[in-house]
Amino acid sequence: MIILGIDPGSRFCGYGLLQVENRRIVAAGSDTIRIPARWPLERKLVRLREEIAKVIAEHKPDAAAVETIYFGKNVRTAFTQGHVRGVILLALAEAGVTVYDYTPSEIKKAVVGNGRASKQQVRYMVQQILGLSTPPETEDAADALAIALCHNNHRQATGLFK
Amino acid sequence: MIILGIDPGSRFCGYGLLQVENRRIVAAGSDTIRIPARWPLERKLVRLREEIAKVIAEHKPDAAAVETIYFGKNVRTAFTQGHVRGVILLALAEAGVTVYDYTPSEIKKAVVGNGRASKQQVRYMVQQILGLSTPPETEDAADALAIALCHNNHRQATGLFK
Repeated sequence: MIILGIDPGSRFCGYGLLQVENRRIVAAGSDTIRIPARWPLERKLVRLREEIAKVIAEHKPDAAAVETIYFGKNVRTAFTQGHVRGVILLALAEAGVTVYDYTPSEIKKAVVGNGRASKQQVRYMVQQILGLSTPPETEDAADALAIALCHNNHRQATGLFK
Repeated sequence: MIILGIDPGSRFCGYGLLQVENRRIVAAGSDTIRIPARWPLERKLVRLREEIAKVIAEHKPDAAAVETIYFGKNVRTAFTQGHVRGVILLALAEAGVTVYDYTPSEIKKAVVGNGRASKQQVRYMVQQILGLSTPPETEDAADALAIALCHNNHRQATGLFK
């Protein structure tokens, strides 16, 4: 099965794909969607949806995991990030991809074993777990792979969902 | 021209339409999109987008005004409301409808003259301004018409935009 992890952002939106067969996990690509900061929010949302739709069409994920936030952000940041995440959830749901939510601390705990791990630690552990010869190119791409790994852990630990 | 006002909400999303010709303003319909509370967020977003797309297709608005929030909400509420508003902005932008943002206090000030007016005052003044024989059926629909009226005021006062 293919798991798509997404690290939502209005300027830099990371995504990463895992191909999982039994206990074998292979990184199947990751990248950052870059959106010009000066664009109005609605134009950013349109671009984001187009790019997410392309990723879905190309990789046909069976499930998606999208980072969620509630705490440690101010109201304005949470509001803007909500817009971005809403459009991502819409794109996934319209394509029939089931969505799972994980908080930053759940994700860090899943890959580093510590819910307060640094970005660098996450990037390093993603490289180790997936046996990559080089670390993912960007922090956003590393985070997105970490999100996908987090979902895979939960899925395998609970056996509850695909 | 047709102005669409939207009061975003994940359970009750109000919309209202104004037809404006020179100084003549006529209410051209308003309603509330109702979405079951028990649905997962992504399913709500899909339904919301479908319903907004129907309103756009039926009424072909020239501009849309969508209430925005930053303050007086907690982070979690702002985050969820952001998801809803993001999907609304996307639906409008994809249909080529220009979007304008107004805060709750701007909207209340525009229709009641007081940025801290109550819901009842807004509903009453919307009925008076538009010469409706009965008040709009729901608070959400009244708010949506108030948002459209607010945009029309700004538009006429500034002459800057349609």
